[in-house]
Amino acid sequence: MNVVVVGGGVIGLSVAWRLSSEHEVTLVDPRPAGGASWVAGGMLAPVTEAWPGEEDLLELGSASLASWPGFAADLGLDLDTRGTIVAAADGADAGQLDTLAEFLAGRGREVERLSGRELRRVEPSLGPNVRSGLIVPGDLAVDNRELLRLLSSRAHEAGVEFIGEAAASVTSGVVELASSTLRCDLAVIAAGAWSGALHPALAGAVRPVKGEILRLRARQNALPPPTHTVRAMVESRAVYLVPRAGDELVVGATQYEAGFDEEVTAGGVRDLLNLAERVVPGVVEYTLTECAAGLRAGSRDNLPLIGSLGPGVVVAAGHHRNGLLLAPITAEAVRAMAAGREEPLVKVADPARLTGGTA
Amino acid sequence: MNVVVVGGGVIGLSVAWRLSSEHEVTLVDPRPAGGASWVAGGMLAPVTEAWPGEEDLLELGSASLASWPGFAADLGLDLDTRGTIVAAADGADAGQLDTLAEFLAGRGREVERLSGRELRRVEPSLGPNVRSGLIVPGDLAVDNRELLRLLSSRAHEAGVEFIGEAAASVTSGVVELASSTLRCDLAVIAAGAWSGALHPALAGAVRPVKGEILRLRARQNALPPPTHTVRAMVESRAVYLVPRAGDELVVGATQYEAGFDEEVTAGGVRDLLNLAERVVPGVVEYTLTECAAGLRAGSRDNLPLIGSLGPGVVVAAGHHRNGLLLAPITAEAVRAMAAGREEPLVKVADPARLTGGTA
Repeated sequence: MNVVVVGGGVIGLSVAWRLSSEHEVTLVDPRPAGGASWVAGGMLAPVTEAWPGEEDLLELGSASLASWPGFAADLGLDLDTRGTIVAAADGADAGQLDTLAEFLAGRGREVERLSGRELRRVEPSLGPNVRSGLIVPGDLAVDNRELLRLLSSRAHEAGVEFIGEAAASVTSGVVELASSTLRCDLAVIAAGAWSGALHPALAGAVRPVKGEILRLRARQNALPPPTHTVRAMVESRAVYLVPRAGDELVVGATQYEAGFDEEVTAGGVRDLLNLAERVVPGVVEYTLTECAAGLRAGSRDNLPLIGSLGPGVVVAAGHHRNGLLLAPITAEAVRAMAAGREEPLVKVADPARLTGGTA
Repeated sequence: MNVVVVGGGVIGLSVAWRLSSEHEVTLVDPRPAGGASWVAGGMLAPVTEAWPGEEDLLELGSASLASWPGFAADLGLDLDTRGTIVAAADGADAGQLDTLAEFLAGRGREVERLSGRELRRVEPSLGPNVRSGLIVPGDLAVDNRELLRLLSSRAHEAGVEFIGEAAASVTSGVVELASSTLRCDLAVIAAGAWSGALHPALAGAVRPVKGEILRLRARQNALPPPTHTVRAMVESRAVYLVPRAGDELVVGATQYEAGFDEEVTAGGVRDLLNLAERVVPGVVEYTLTECAAGLRAGSRDNLPLIGSLGPGVVVAAGHHRNGLLLAPITAEAVRAMAAGREEPLVKVADPARLTGGTA
């Protein structure tokens, strides 16, 4: 079958790569391997990102997490299995951790509750402000940029054709570009926050949610970065610190809802630096190597949209903070749809719930 | 005469350009138009940078400031004549302004003392924290990067030969590069913080002083940048905000003495953002377009070293925070020396005071 994938972030690349063994695949993106996937922290963290009311997302994420070791092995990508620490800076933050711990325990998840002192024994980079926390052994992390590089080269090797243009609209079997038209048996809309403009059913169903990240590198004589992924609550604000190879550290992520704005703001950088310092004081001695912003694709219920929009059109967008985590299960689900099967695990992500219609 | 200028920052470029009308000039620098000059804020501010005990520097700076309009006109460069505001955030900072105001008044300088409310009437971008300040009408500002571009092209047009290598040493009439030797009638050491390694008399006389700056741009719907250059004291820490064309704003500058370290630190950026926000709260809504670090060339008495180091060798380095300001007078003094004359205004900058010998 002839498939056109619109969007070359982690979702579009994963779909194109996974479909390329059985189909003729074309990927359309003016800047593939960019966007929100490039700016991500790289946490594969369904458990520590979980929250009461988002049980479906926890189950979907857990199912995708289970696919990650195989997905990474096929790519030749290293997974960071050192686990995640969730840290709380003050009393109200500790209360939030109680809520999270109870929710996870109630769903049978393994969680270890520690005092600030106990946490610092496990993760000495944490500062004296940290009062308490959780250790979550199962969550993974991945170098998002290495992931994008590998997905791109695997897709190229598998014969995916890349067209460096933006799509203007997608209808049954037709993808309109600025200056040409692509005809196909199946079109897959995987354009993240930009998906809403491509198909009438998606208008208003996907919105841009801006996130800023910093990339830091420990300097000579500075304290080493954390050995775990650290998610923290500081005065009710969330910050994460994800260690990378080469003494690097990714700090994120702000969340703003202000339309298609991809600029890094002074206030965003200030907030991330101040929050990160409260959790891991040693970061002030690090080199600031990059500030970047990206647009996640938010949906109204924080679940993605994965499913048919009608004959010959599938959507795989709206992954919000979970694009990397959900890439394997999303690609698998689209592969099943292309073969005329349904993937029951992604039933909760059926776009009909948000687009007001059934396919 | 055959002249080799070592160093292509604002001093080296100005010297090369000004000497090129009378001499054959070669400029040696692996990255001309870079370094501390590229990272500068662009204030030409002898008065607001003045401090008791640095009377010689105030007089030297004032003499060079008087040359700036002609220098800029020759280059075709715009000068920002909107003047400088010096603002104080708290009581102790206001005390520092009293010291500065008294010092300047005692030297016959025009200074206007204003309350916070009066200052905000003149400069509405200032935040409610600002308690009091000075208005200094005479100080100028310049776009340092435009200055470097113009100096480079004027020097090229005037026939200056550029060699993109680093110099290893300078002795009488000889400049050693990595792979070749340049012979000349006069060698001018204008390599800023790196000058100390080029000639034995300069060892220990010039040291690197790191400075970090941010470049910001006012976004749509954000408050506009200040219309004056703003220097401020916030809890005894100095910060400056220099407006540029196109709603840009340069914020600087930290000072660290940590050797030849040109990396931007998380702590430096955090400090600049927090200080700038205290003075001009609107900056948090600005785009952060660049973080950069450079190495100024410090000397023990904060005065530059301009003068002979022996037959055929002149130094023009150690300008610390005043490289842009002092470029015209430095170039004029080196031109005089090349003609066998002395420039009495730069007598206070004679390197003999620091190198322990006379030329």
